Amino acid sequence: MSITAAKGFTAAGIAAGIKENGNPDLALVVNTGPRLAAAGVFTSNRVKAAPVLWSEQVLKGGRLSAVVLNSGGANACTGPKGFQDTHATAEKVAASLNTAGYDETGGHDAGSVAVCSTGLIGLLLPMDKVLPGVDKAVAQLSPHGGEKAALAIKTTDSVHKTARVTVGEAGGEWTVGGMAKGAGMLAPGLATMLVVLTTDADLPAEDLDAALRSATRTTFDRVDSDGCMSTNDTVLLLASGASGVVPEKAAFAEAVRTVCDDLARQLIGDAEGASKDIRIEVINAANEDDAVEVGRSIARNNLLKCAVHGEDPNWGRVLSAIGTTSAAFEPDRLNVAINDVWVCKNGSFGEDRELVDMRYREVRITADLAAGDASAVIWSNDLTADYVHENSAYSS
Amino acid sequence: MSITAAKGFTAAGIAAGIKENGNPDLALVVNTGPRLAAAGVFTSNRVKAAPVLWSEQVLKGGRLSAVVLNSGGANACTGPKGFQDTHATAEKVAASLNTAGYDETGGHDAGSVAVCSTGLIGLLLPMDKVLPGVDKAVAQLSPHGGEKAALAIKTTDSVHKTARVTVGEAGGEWTVGGMAKGAGMLAPGLATMLVVLTTDADLPAEDLDAALRSATRTTFDRVDSDGCMSTNDTVLLLASGASGVVPEKAAFAEAVRTVCDDLARQLIGDAEGASKDIRIEVINAANEDDAVEVGRSIARNNLLKCAVHGEDPNWGRVLSAIGTTSAAFEPDRLNVAINDVWVCKNGSFGEDRELVDMRYREVRITADLAAGDASAVIWSNDLTADYVHENSAYSS
Repeated sequence: MSITAAKGFTAAGIAAGIKENGNPDLALVVNTGPRLAAAGVFTSNRVKAAPVLWSEQVLKGGRLSAVVLNSGGANACTGPKGFQDTHATAEKVAASLNTAGYDETGGHDAGSVAVCSTGLIGLLLPMDKVLPGVDKAVAQLSPHGGEKAALAIKTTDSVHKTARVTVGEAGGEWTVGGMAKGAGMLAPGLATMLVVLTTDADLPAEDLDAALRSATRTTFDRVDSDGCMSTNDTVLLLASGASGVVPEKAAFAEAVRTVCDDLARQLIGDAEGASKDIRIEVINAANEDDAVEVGRSIARNNLLKCAVHGEDPNWGRVLSAIGTTSAAFEPDRLNVAINDVWVCKNGSFGEDRELVDMRYREVRITADLAAGDASAVIWSNDLTADYVHENSAYSS
Repeated sequence: MSITAAKGFTAAGIAAGIKENGNPDLALVVNTGPRLAAAGVFTSNRVKAAPVLWSEQVLKGGRLSAVVLNSGGANACTGPKGFQDTHATAEKVAASLNTAGYDETGGHDAGSVAVCSTGLIGLLLPMDKVLPGVDKAVAQLSPHGGEKAALAIKTTDSVHKTARVTVGEAGGEWTVGGMAKGAGMLAPGLATMLVVLTTDADLPAEDLDAALRSATRTTFDRVDSDGCMSTNDTVLLLASGASGVVPEKAAFAEAVRTVCDDLARQLIGDAEGASKDIRIEVINAANEDDAVEVGRSIARNNLLKCAVHGEDPNWGRVLSAIGTTSAAFEPDRLNVAINDVWVCKNGSFGEDRELVDMRYREVRITADLAAGDASAVIWSNDLTADYVHENSAYSS
């Protein structure tokens, strides 16, 4: 149970034939109301896929009745025809839902249907598969379809990712649920990830938007697998109001953040080829921006990522990475711990590096800038021969 | 013949025992005059090794009588003791040269001796090996010692790197020669590279400085192997005036640029684990800064570097990389060629990607921003399992 954990949503996941191997590749999520509020956050890459351009436009009304997602093709860098295909997909979803009698919320139109795509850039989608696939998905919509939808958006993901939080006592409870896909290309600005969150809390679009932006800023936006930013990233939050509960804004924001954090951790844990999860905590920074800048610089240092793969507590590479930033610090006051052993003190060697035990999957790097009291956590992973293999052996 | 190709220089390269495997690890270059002009460019990493801090200070006088270089240890992040060691090494070079009678230029003092180190960060140098090594190097100084010096500064380099340019007719000719080390960690701001250039042209320090900064800006600074910036990078240019020729400034600048370009290409050609050299040319940019920013973003995209390794003309990853920059462009006017096949036209698919032949070592990526008439070339290399192995199997 994931995006159908909250009341007021149905979903489906089917094989439309977009993927040549016959795996599930098309998911549909429908909000059955009574409310149709929605918010979204999109990639900050300036080269945006057609579905991102479409969904950004659609979201301006703060209202979504359905989301259709496909794997097997990103529909990015596909020109006017690619945008027409996205539009046609949304039209098809609305028409098919209306024909099937899904009119609880007054009927669907393309202007309330978001579209998400993931896969190879630069290829047109096989619309002769996509459009019949929409009909097939509509026919399989179910309040228990969340898992199947999560399975249908996988690309190189080894597992599907779902999460939920339920708050309140019986009778007054409300839920935030979600699903995500993403395995590589994670980066600030939301790289290859598609995330759909649903809630039956009864809140207007502006409250959803505030909660979603606040949550993504400290979760998906602080996961950096390989520094590469996608053209397709999309995080959507849909509210049905079906619980009839209007939660406190702070409680709602915390629930959304918890689900986002859970999904973000699942994304980094499934990063392509990774053998280590790296938790980078920057402490005593002059401000949060400095902490994030330093954390990202460490997360993106290929030499350090290789060293972590080799279980080598090579703190010099951490200092090299810090030194490339514009954050406030004095080089001779920097301290670095790896798995809680302070191998670097005052910019020089500290405790014996032989004390660092790096056998386990999680590796913790702490960088103390000694410049203030702000902090941030960035999650990354190691760089491995498997990553190279997975990203050189075929187009993705 | 390299740093001793220009008249007025002697050099040596010896095994001092800094490297445990007994390979050469200490090089010495001495300017025998009559002029002792010098200029230098250093890493822009804010975490600077002790020898960088020392040499930057020494260079302020525009005068160097000698340069001592060691491999086997970077003497970076080593605190006050590390700086004392650098100082002691410079004192030892001056004393040993004076004792040996190298007083053509009026005697040596530590304040005219630059120090360069390369190797692992965070370890003190074995000074009981370094100081006797200096005596040994002084004893072997020779006007034919350039090759041995170039060999002694290698770390993971598979070959030593030298270059020279000689200008003018017999009797009025002058030379610029150089040596370099560096195999990984190349990046803008001059990452792990140590370069010494010598010339017998008769020019003052300010002319050397202008020629060197101009040359490094478009050569070493446009080589980006893995985006990692070192704590130790140093490029020095020493002039002896021994030719008695005062060249035109433009001709001198061009000679320095030619030698730097030659050495920079040798560095990228020897990048750790690389199987492809990637020449990234950004054309029709609004200005040169935009062209360089886009070129670096492409050079640092791990997914693209893996694709090139797999001989996959994955132009979508080029567009993704361009999209993360702040350069002036419209996404639907971008064009990309791989090995001269325009696989992306107007932000969408162009010529058939099957036409791209990527079997050869050099791969050419051309990114057309359609925003102006500026251009820049950045050199990079692919990302391979060998790179991961070389940087995870041991500390470096």
